[in-house]
Order: sequence, then C-alpha cells, then structure tokens
Amino acid sequence: MGRITDRRTITRLRAGAPSDRPDTLVVEEPLEIRVGGRPLTVTMRTPGHDFDLAAGFLATEGVVAAASEIAAQRYCTGTRPDAHYNIVDVTLSDGVAPPDPSLERAFYTTSSCGICGKASLDAVRTATRWPVSDDTTTIPSSLLATLPDLLRAEQRVFDRTGGLHAAGLFTADGDALCVREDVGRHNAVDKVIGWALKAGRLPLTGCVLQVSGRASFELTQKALMAGIPTLSAVSAPSSLAVDLADEAGMTLVGFVRGNSMNVYTGKHRVTEAVPI
Amino acid sequence: MGRITDRRTITRLRAGAPSDRPDTLVVEEPLEIRVGGRPLTVTMRTPGHDFDLAAGFLATEGVVAAASEIAAQRYCTGTRPDAHYNIVDVTLSDGVAPPDPSLERAFYTTSSCGICGKASLDAVRTATRWPVSDDTTTIPSSLLATLPDLLRAEQRVFDRTGGLHAAGLFTADGDALCVREDVGRHNAVDKVIGWALKAGRLPLTGCVLQVSGRASFELTQKALMAGIPTLSAVSAPSSLAVDLADEAGMTLVGFVRGNSMNVYTGKHRVTEAVPI
Repeated sequence: MGRITDRRTITRLRAGAPSDRPDTLVVEEPLEIRVGGRPLTVTMRTPGHDFDLAAGFLATEGVVAAASEIAAQRYCTGTRPDAHYNIVDVTLSDGVAPPDPSLERAFYTTSSCGICGKASLDAVRTATRWPVSDDTTTIPSSLLATLPDLLRAEQRVFDRTGGLHAAGLFTADGDALCVREDVGRHNAVDKVIGWALKAGRLPLTGCVLQVSGRASFELTQKALMAGIPTLSAVSAPSSLAVDLADEAGMTLVGFVRGNSMNVYTGKHRVTEAVPI
Repeated sequence: MGRITDRRTITRLRAGAPSDRPDTLVVEEPLEIRVGGRPLTVTMRTPGHDFDLAAGFLATEGVVAAASEIAAQRYCTGTRPDAHYNIVDVTLSDGVAPPDPSLERAFYTTSSCGICGKASLDAVRTATRWPVSDDTTTIPSSLLATLPDLLRAEQRVFDRTGGLHAAGLFTADGDALCVREDVGRHNAVDKVIGWALKAGRLPLTGCVLQVSGRASFELTQKALMAGIPTLSAVSAPSSLAVDLADEAGMTLVGFVRGNSMNVYTGKHRVTEAVPI
C-alpha cells in the first residue's frame, strides 16, 4: 500500500518573511484499473482503499451491481518496484459482461445523435438499475445541516494537508456508514460506493451521500448508479447535475451552510427541521 | 454558442423555513473534441471559448505548439439541434502528426514499466518542448499575494452561481492577460492556454498561472506544457504536482492567502516583498 501523505521541505512566507520548514502533502499517484488483464482507465488518486475504488468505479459505470459479480481483485506487479501498488486487476465472475472498451465515452454520446446534455441524461437513465424515484425516505433539514460538519470531522488527512476532497455515506438518521478522502472527488465517491458494494448494501436505499465540494453531473450520476436517493453538496451544483437529479427523481441539495441550504430537486424528501 | 448560466426554481431553506425562488446555475455540457473528424476526448465543460478549450487541450497534450499548426476549427452539426455546439473538430496543418489514440493513457504509463508517479514524470519530461528551468523571471511575493484577488475580481460567472473554477494568466508585473472560468478546473486552464496559443504567445515565458483551487499533477503538467515557469494555487498541491514542478524547474506556490503563502519549489523566482 502506498503512502497517503508525504513530507517535503518548503519555504513558508509570512508577511514576506521566509522560513524553511517541513510540510505534509497529500499523495497523488496514478491507479490503472484493469478488467481481466485489460487496461480500462487510469485515475490520479490518493493511495488507499484501491480495491474499493476499482469496485466502485465498475459499479458506477454499470459494469457490476453486487459483490458476487467480482470474483477477485489483485495488485499487478510491474517491473518497477514502485509501481507494484498502482495497478489493480479485477476478475469478473462468470457470466458478467466485461465493460465496453469505449466505456468512458459511452455515457455522453451515441453514434446516431451527436453529443449533448440530453443524450448524457438518456444514457444514464438506460444504465441505471435501481428506480431511485421510488425511494420514499425522508430526512429533516436539520439533520442534513449537520452532515458537512460530520464529514469534516472524519477527514483525518485533510487536517494534515488541506488538500483532499471527501465523500460520506450517511443513513437517514445521520449515522456515518463510510467516509473516504481523495485528491479526486470522483475517486472519493467511488471508494465509498465500492465499500458499499462489497458490504452487500447496493442499492443504497434511504441513504444520503454528502460531498465536500460541488455537485457535478458525474457525481450525481455515480450516486444514482448506486441507488442513492439524496445527494448533498457543500457547494453549487451544475445545470446538468440538477437536470439528472430531476429526471431520476433524486433529491439534490447544495450550499449546505449552517442551517441554510438550497434544495434543487426532490424537495418531498426534505422535511421540516426537528430538534436534535 | 450554448448558455453559460441557466435558471431553475429551487427551494431555499433558511433556518428551516422554505421559500421557492429562482436560482442561477452554471451550465455543464459535454464537449467532444475531434481531430480530423476522429473523436479524441469528451470533457464536461461550461460552454464558451470552446475553440480555445480544444486548442489548449491539444497544446497541453503535446499535439500542437503554435497557432500555425491548427489549420481550422469548426463546430460539427449532429442530428440533434441541441448538440450543434458540443462537438469541435480540429483540422491540423499539413505535416502535424495527429494525436496518439491512446493519448490520455500515454502520459501515465508505458508498456514496459508499469505505472507510477515516476513514470508519469518521465512521460511529461519527454513531451515538454520548452525548458522552463531556464526562465529567470522573478516575482515579488507581495505581487503573488495579490493574484487570487485579481483572479476573483474577474470571475463574473462565479458571482452569480458560486459554482466555477478559474484560471488566470498574469505577467510578472501582475497584468492579467487572460482569465477563464469553467466547471472543470482543467478546462479553465486549457481555455487560457488555448487563448495564448492562438495569440502566438507560447511558450509563456515569464508568466504566472494562478488557479482558484488546488494544484494537481494534471494542472502542473498543463502549465509546464505551455512553458509557464510559475504556478500559483489558492489551495494545496499534491505530492506529484510538487515532484513534477521540482523536476522541471518550475516555481510552485500554494495556500496563497492574505500576505502568506507556501513556496514548494523554485523559490529562487520569488523575491522579497516590495511596496505596491
């Protein structure tokens, strides 16, 4: 397993006055995900929970939907000693179709219609296995308001580096199921969802995914692919994130700050504040 | 040209009290970049400056290094009316080699050595056209301290949506040459570099690239590929960003807040504060 943080000597300037001192950095290293020995994608990630990351990536891309669909995961050994833990090979179970080689592009475009946000929404709708819109779980707004602080409290590496995104999976009662940090925000979400896949928890009915930053189309897509009904972001969502959440019947919350928040879609799941 | 912002009706909760009101969102739409009619990549971006984005992407991937290497750029027409402005086709000039189809992976791995940060650094070093380490431009720390505010002052869309990354290109005297916003931080940088390519300004000797967020390996690589000697980030850099900057002889500054900052590499370019 690679290191999560690393030390460097840096020059700190305070009001123009320099001082050399050690500093802790978050580690970023490439991870190549292979399926059946065939390279599928490379992501720049923070080492740790690599098998969850690979499993979560495959789940959110629609390749697998249950732990039983993965027969094995292992690190590949390259010829460079320092590359040993940067390739994960996933063996799918018998009968599970391998991913389309054009996987990354497949979500955004089809050969017949060109490329646009509408086509992206259509592609995700086709790939989704679970009807999130049927999920009737409700959450008090006062509980949603606590999730960013709960997430932040679990961010152990952020405290030392200031350099990480986080994703946290919570129950509708506010219990933290899994929190992960990564230099890449999509990686943090994939690590959480990979954990859930392996724990036999997909679809994540009744759960809330809290993310530390913004809500992009890609993060909303990942939440939907895991059957998560509610996505909550500390910052702004994009237009296409809101469109996808709306079409899928998801609840999308943003700008959760103090006891204020914006509910962009699915407001029927957000109930009045209750005393905690 | 697609819209940069869009309006939606949302529910705003303040201390638990809901009110429905219109809200402005930043638009996120896919852009497919083609070279000679052949699809190369899809990026989720904010519409606007799409030709600069495509040109900058090709420059930072090492495909082109001057405006003269691009013969033409045009939007492709798909069969969906709303997809017209989401595909850019780039025609390279005669004699310019088209990109390797495995372009995205090529930066991170080679078939012989597996994959690791060291291999990533080697690949970038091979691809770099300009010896940034020879750039002797210096910048007072007091000037570096002003760049985040100058960048923020140019962020017109952020003011309305709170949902955008920004990248700004500045001279060593603090003059803003080009500022771009995008939902994707790599897109904002590519748009700036594409602008510079078309303006005949590559390599960007003596310039500073200021980014609104963190400094990842990818952003550092893009700055290096454009010949930018100094990259300054509001937040933290990753380990691999620092390693790449160090190897290339770049200056990497982070956590620029008020009159404080951390200089991670290339401190010889950062001089004492001067009165402004």
